[in-house]
Amino acid sequence: MAPAMVMALILACLVGLALLLRRRLGRVRLYRIIFEADTPAGKAFDVVLLLAIVASVLSVMLESDPRLRVLYLAPFEVLEWGFTLLFTLEYVLRLLCVVQPIRYITSFYGVVDLLAILPTFLGLILPGAQSFLVVRILRLLRIFRILKLGEYLKESELLWQALVTSRRKILVFLLTMITLVIVIGALMFLIEGEAGGFVSIPVGIYWAVVTITTVGYGDVAPVTPLGRFVASAVMLLGYSIIAVPTGILSVGLRDAHRQRRQSGRACQRCGCTGHDSDARYCKRCGAGL
Amino acid sequence: MAPAMVMALILACLVGLALLLRRRLGRVRLYRIIFEADTPAGKAFDVVLLLAIVASVLSVMLESDPRLRVLYLAPFEVLEWGFTLLFTLEYVLRLLCVVQPIRYITSFYGVVDLLAILPTFLGLILPGAQSFLVVRILRLLRIFRILKLGEYLKESELLWQALVTSRRKILVFLLTMITLVIVIGALMFLIEGEAGGFVSIPVGIYWAVVTITTVGYGDVAPVTPLGRFVASAVMLLGYSIIAVPTGILSVGLRDAHRQRRQSGRACQRCGCTGHDSDARYCKRCGAGL
Amino acid sequence: MAPAMVMALILACLVGLALLLRRRLGRVRLYRIIFEADTPAGKAFDVVLLLAIVASVLSVMLESDPRLRVLYLAPFEVLEWGFTLLFTLEYVLRLLCVVQPIRYITSFYGVVDLLAILPTFLGLILPGAQSFLVVRILRLLRIFRILKLGEYLKESELLWQALVTSRRKILVFLLTMITLVIVIGALMFLIEGEAGGFVSIPVGIYWAVVTITTVGYGDVAPVTPLGRFVASAVMLLGYSIIAVPTGILSVGLRDAHRQRRQSGRACQRCGCTGHDSDARYCKRCGAGL
Amino acid sequence: MAPAMVMALILACLVGLALLLRRRLGRVRLYRIIFEADTPAGKAFDVVLLLAIVASVLSVMLESDPRLRVLYLAPFEVLEWGFTLLFTLEYVLRLLCVVQPIRYITSFYGVVDLLAILPTFLGLILPGAQSFLVVRILRLLRIFRILKLGEYLKESELLWQALVTSRRKILVFLLTMITLVIVIGALMFLIEGEAGGFVSIPVGIYWAVVTITTVGYGDVAPVTPLGRFVASAVMLLGYSIIAVPTGILSVGLRDAHRQRRQSGRACQRCGCTGHDSDARYCKRCGAGL
Repeated sequence: MAPAMVMALILACLVGLALLLRRRLGRVRLYRIIFEADTPAGKAFDVVLLLAIVASVLSVMLESDPRLRVLYLAPFEVLEWGFTLLFTLEYVLRLLCVVQPIRYITSFYGVVDLLAILPTFLGLILPGAQSFLVVRILRLLRIFRILKLGEYLKESELLWQALVTSRRKILVFLLTMITLVIVIGALMFLIEGEAGGFVSIPVGIYWAVVTITTVGYGDVAPVTPLGRFVASAVMLLGYSIIAVPTGILSVGLRDAHRQRRQSGRACQRCGCTGHDSDARYCKRCGAGL
Repeated sequence: MAPAMVMALILACLVGLALLLRRRLGRVRLYRIIFEADTPAGKAFDVVLLLAIVASVLSVMLESDPRLRVLYLAPFEVLEWGFTLLFTLEYVLRLLCVVQPIRYITSFYGVVDLLAILPTFLGLILPGAQSFLVVRILRLLRIFRILKLGEYLKESELLWQALVTSRRKILVFLLTMITLVIVIGALMFLIEGEAGGFVSIPVGIYWAVVTITTVGYGDVAPVTPLGRFVASAVMLLGYSIIAVPTGILSVGLRDAHRQRRQSGRACQRCGCTGHDSDARYCKRCGAGL
Repeated sequence: MAPAMVMALILACLVGLALLLRRRLGRVRLYRIIFEADTPAGKAFDVVLLLAIVASVLSVMLESDPRLRVLYLAPFEVLEWGFTLLFTLEYVLRLLCVVQPIRYITSFYGVVDLLAILPTFLGLILPGAQSFLVVRILRLLRIFRILKLGEYLKESELLWQALVTSRRKILVFLLTMITLVIVIGALMFLIEGEAGGFVSIPVGIYWAVVTITTVGYGDVAPVTPLGRFVASAVMLLGYSIIAVPTGILSVGLRDAHRQRRQSGRACQRCGCTGHDSDARYCKRCGAGL
Repeated sequence: MAPAMVMALILACLVGLALLLRRRLGRVRLYRIIFEADTPAGKAFDVVLLLAIVASVLSVMLESDPRLRVLYLAPFEVLEWGFTLLFTLEYVLRLLCVVQPIRYITSFYGVVDLLAILPTFLGLILPGAQSFLVVRILRLLRIFRILKLGEYLKESELLWQALVTSRRKILVFLLTMITLVIVIGALMFLIEGEAGGFVSIPVGIYWAVVTITTVGYGDVAPVTPLGRFVASAVMLLGYSIIAVPTGILSVGLRDAHRQRRQSGRACQRCGCTGHDSDARYCKRCGAGL
């Protein structure tokens, strides 16, 4: 029961530290520092958190290398525990300063935050649980939350709106691609057989995806003349229909752009729209907007 | 003659079941359920059919894997016969509720529907005919028929119209690509010879397609300095002219878009349409819009 | 001297046949059939010629396969002589019906036409000269000449005009790509050394082209961590700047399109341009165009 | 100490020659020839310099080939010293004709110019320093400086402006790509293990970049069914989101284009610019344009 006691001790210390911090700063002020980014302290917190996440991800990445893991066993252990304690403190602080802790715990970022610290503690009880520490990489997704708060909002919003507007076209395109890829994969399985590595239809479909997206690993490749002829046709097809997503998105972007520009104001005298956002007079009749 | 008798018995049962269903529901109502999708029953039929098709295709795909086929011989046989009976019932129902059965049988989907059930029955008489069951994958194309009926019509229509408008440009582009690829393939056959795997002109053309579409398997690749230099030029060419299909399609999409938008306003005097969005007078008769 | 005599005899026969044809049809009519495509006979000639070229190219392609060449030695020889005699007759006819034969002989198509028949005749004197028959594939380029005469003119003209308008941008882009590729190739040569196959700077440059164009053969690939990191950056770069040729061409296409539409007419009352080609009244002031 | 003396002698000669040239032509005239390109002499200097740079880079490239280095040891040495002396003379001339030599020395091109000549001289004292001559390839970047001075300025400016306008969108896109690639790389490391070559997370990330950018070397490729399924999804993702940089740039190009076009007309009352091409009244003060 020794590891469990160590764990309990650590957690008690962290909770005590978090309670102390909350008393010092007050719940509301702590909330604004941790969850928002419109104060200097909040911005500083976000930057430090991002750096800690990036450093912890780098540590997990390097530890996955078999040679490095053997060479630097102790430093990796120290780093792992350091980041775990830091992220546990952050998790407890978040719990202590939100009004509805249950809602935070069950949110996407809440689950990811918990998963990022659990494996280290579980490793004390269940040997081998630490290998799930890879899940910590998901914390990188917090970068999008931080981006959302800043001035990058407007830029990504336009792109996002274009994707939402085109979601049906994208779905039709993806369904067509999937159907095409299955039919082509089955065809090549029949044509090529096992010589070129087409041992089953799923492998043929994998080949078709690799080919139509112009990735082209070459681990499965046609060797018969007929197979190569069909493959050439598939490549030309893939090379040509790459224009389709581009076309869909550029139409979507243009529409989103126009919508934003026009949603503003209409001239009250002549009713025309499409004024720039900084316009003060109607560009067609000269009346004030 | 035992297998043929089994087959006849099965078919008789299915036809009986189908006749029963037609009497219960009536020909017209059955037609609306099976061929159309504007009633709740019709939509439900389409969804169930689609699920059955996807499940049968998955079964065919998994059966093609040599290891799985040996491991699960019996389940695959059961699944195959199940889907065959289901699709045969569907085929007979379609035959019984259309006014002109010959027209359905000779249509594209009619032929595919028949080909999807034939191999299982043929397998009773001719051992080995079941390997043609792969053709069942073509039934996936029915997904496009179902998409057409729904709200996705308008989305894919615009894309389709853009492709039709640009068909001549696409043809010129494809002809240019094919000519380029043949000339480059022959050139590389002369330069590289058999060292890099360029054993004949068709192989050289296959390499040229693989390279100019930026797929790049690497099964055939230049090894001489001159060959690599020419290959680099071909790659840069392929990398640059990928802009051409994109440009063609985006012009086509814009034209299709404009055409649709223009079709809105009609001149009240002469009734002609196709005016620009900023036009104030009819372009044909000069009347105010 | 026997082969030379055979050759002389053949040529004499062909010239005789050509002279006979010219007397029968007349020089001007023959010219319109062979060089133009606005008469039924001219169109038929073009189609037959195109088919013969395609067939001769197919024959050369198949003959290049070592196995097929051994198997079908005699048929290939017959085909080769057949096409050579046909193309020689065509060449003599072209010479006989143009006003300035020298100008035709020194033109691009004249040289290609001659090169396509020379190797067979040279093979009679110099054994081995027939291997240059591959040059016959260049005759495929005549397809562009035939396309030019038809209704495809307008389509490819717009694309061509867009390329001409953007030629400076394309040059800047290509120069940037070439400089980038040389610098990256030299860098990878220093980083990777011979382990990953980067034996010299030219090989490094070849790798950089293969990577930045997203072809990716894999015959030369980085193996060191630093090399793979730099390679990843190069790939992301290549993946992103593929947008540049697309952007250049789409701006060029839009400009070419606008120019064509506007070059037409300006309203004589209000001076505005941009009327559709079928407009009869000004869209802004309603005056007749 | 012999090599150092040789070096001192050479440098003394070159400085003497440079001083002579400066006295003959005058500092201002020399400056216009070397640093500017608006006089015939300045243009000629740029062309000669560019040719010398290209020739020296070709020499460095060929020398890197192990076979060629052994075969042509002496010619390469002669070329290396020739280009070094030429570039040293150029460097001394530049130093002598600018008003603030320190500013030139610490500028990017100044550092590159110095690095391009240093290795040869260092090779006299430190054997092996000559291998750093590869840095001479960076001098190729001077091509951009020369392009900037010519008529290509306007073309590349538009492209550059589009990139600057879109820098935030590009940053969001790159951050998304990097996050995606890290998460996918870690996922594949867990799924595939060492069988397919995914020995560590960094290798998994390298594979993810190779795949999502559609490069596809094939040196690391999935072999398990689940891994291939995830890989197929990643490929389709990479194939689709290539539309994003294209969309970003084409919006940027359009904006840059519009901005340039709009900058034309200015309001005569308030002097503001940026009016749409179809505007008839000033959007800020309402006066007629």
